[in-house]
Amino acid sequence: MKVEKFVPYSAVIFTSTLASSDGYAAMAKRMEELAKQQPGFIRMDSAREDVGITVSYWKNLESIQLWKKNVDHLNTQDLGKRKWYESYSVRIAKVEREYGFN
Amino acid sequence: MKVEKFVPYSAVIFTSTLASSDGYAAMAKRMEELAKQQPGFIRMDSAREDVGITVSYWKNLESIQLWKKNVDHLNTQDLGKRKWYESYSVRIAKVEREYGFN
Repeated sequence: MKVEKFVPYSAVIFTSTLASSDGYAAMAKRMEELAKQQPGFIRMDSAREDVGITVSYWKNLESIQLWKKNVDHLNTQDLGKRKWYESYSVRIAKVEREYGFN
Repeated sequence: MKVEKFVPYSAVIFTSTLASSDGYAAMAKRMEELAKQQPGFIRMDSAREDVGITVSYWKNLESIQLWKKNVDHLNTQDLGKRKWYESYSVRIAKVEREYGFN
């Protein structure tokens, strides 16, 4: 059954390649736990093969900004993202249509 | 170096879980090759672990519609998406901001 969902809402598409995986899984898990506690969090999906893709969904841009502030704080404690990432892209997007089946 | 890229453009965020992987990799490769030949195609990133995420980027919604028409045609030939997918979500989004480092 195709179901149209409630739109619009916001998404952060984070695409990366890793320079080091030392401690990365633990950090990623911590990030996900932190995200889930944030106001406005909807869901997060992650997968990694050659490239890692994490898409998090948020009620609005304000909830993304608050989340980003917390991530930046965490990253400072962790000596910066560049410890792990060879490259990354962050794309902020507005989800305008959604459908699927289960 | 952080680089702001040209926005806005469109994205299709396709998230799925597989019911069967029989012939899936070949179909996914064919889909990607087809996408790259479409007008308005910008790039595509894919990764799969528990969940598969494919994000394709397009100049505008018109190029997505044309691409979708071709995918539907291909899927009909392949007896439908439901051969492979246990579940899937398609989200059409507008990328409004982009930054990253390389």
